Amino acid sequence: MNSYPDAIKTLIDELSSLPGLGPKTAERIVFYLLKQGNGTINNLTESLAVLSKSVTICKYCHNVSTYSPCQICSDTKRDKTTVCVVAYPQDVLVIEKTGDYRGLYHVLGGTINPVEGITPEQLKIGELTSRIQKQIPKISEVIIATNPDLEGESTAMYLSRLIKPLNIKVTRLAKGLPMGSDLEYADEITVSNAIKGRQVM
Amino acid sequence: MNSYPDAIKTLIDELSSLPGLGPKTAERIVFYLLKQGNGTINNLTESLAVLSKSVTICKYCHNVSTYSPCQICSDTKRDKTTVCVVAYPQDVLVIEKTGDYRGLYHVLGGTINPVEGITPEQLKIGELTSRIQKQIPKISEVIIATNPDLEGESTAMYLSRLIKPLNIKVTRLAKGLPMGSDLEYADEITVSNAIKGRQVM
Repeated sequence: MNSYPDAIKTLIDELSSLPGLGPKTAERIVFYLLKQGNGTINNLTESLAVLSKSVTICKYCHNVSTYSPCQICSDTKRDKTTVCVVAYPQDVLVIEKTGDYRGLYHVLGGTINPVEGITPEQLKIGELTSRIQKQIPKISEVIIATNPDLEGESTAMYLSRLIKPLNIKVTRLAKGLPMGSDLEYADEITVSNAIKGRQVM
Repeated sequence: MNSYPDAIKTLIDELSSLPGLGPKTAERIVFYLLKQGNGTINNLTESLAVLSKSVTICKYCHNVSTYSPCQICSDTKRDKTTVCVVAYPQDVLVIEKTGDYRGLYHVLGGTINPVEGITPEQLKIGELTSRIQKQIPKISEVIIATNPDLEGESTAMYLSRLIKPLNIKVTRLAKGLPMGSDLEYADEITVSNAIKGRQVM
């Protein structure tokens, strides 16, 4: 015997190609599933099938949702004049959890990253500008909430240059010291951002 | 929106319960699958279904296999008088890859671990002794290849006490310095084992 049975090999290969999973963890998962038996495997199979069937993308904000338009876009109580632009669906949940934002969202599906070949055309940027031009009620502010890293910053810059000429207020999430952090151990750019963005008390 | 759609939540929960996967990696995998689309999800669903249908356990050695008896147990060229006892199916492959062993195997399905509530009764130990008593041709040597850690050692001790009275030669994989290691950084128990197990050159 030089290798596992085909069924095991195939599943290990497929699991290894998922993000965050190496061949060793994939192997461990497969043998765990075999040990747990058919019940666990069937549950997983079914959940995967339900995922592929029941999750759709909202036609307005491009967030994942069970319906289109999604719960947020169809909520009449939300402020439709403000749109928060995020890179991924996960980011919507992070902002929603604060309870401090009552506007709408726009999910880009990533950030501009020339190294990995991700150009503005592959993101929902055209959809954003057409939404700004067409949506009723009119959008008055676009909050750019991409990550404060290289790709997030350049995407924010790109969007700002694109949207400002449309006479829309463009804002960016504040950069500064995170709560609970220690000035002594903060990096220079963070401290520098905290000084530049200092606020009157 | 306070949480993801149900289909996403369920799959994240199920993936998180797999060994080596935390909720963050599970979330990443689910969004990766959504991005990849139905093709990738269907492949995974199918591989899982094939796994649960086509993988069986060999009735002699209890290794995973497409057939029972497995490829190794039904190979007429192998030495049927020697049985190597391992904890998990993965260990069979590790020993097979050396190409130095031509006997049979016996997969226990784990090691004795009172802390986690794994008793000898839950392992294929009864099956091993009945195999030793019944198999034709007769088994002359049992090589115990459990890990050289606390559980592996106590399982080896337990098996040795059980099998020796049956007048069978019981051996254990050699313990010593691994190839490429540095004496200076080896732990004391390893060096001590290397001294005890020293061999004539």
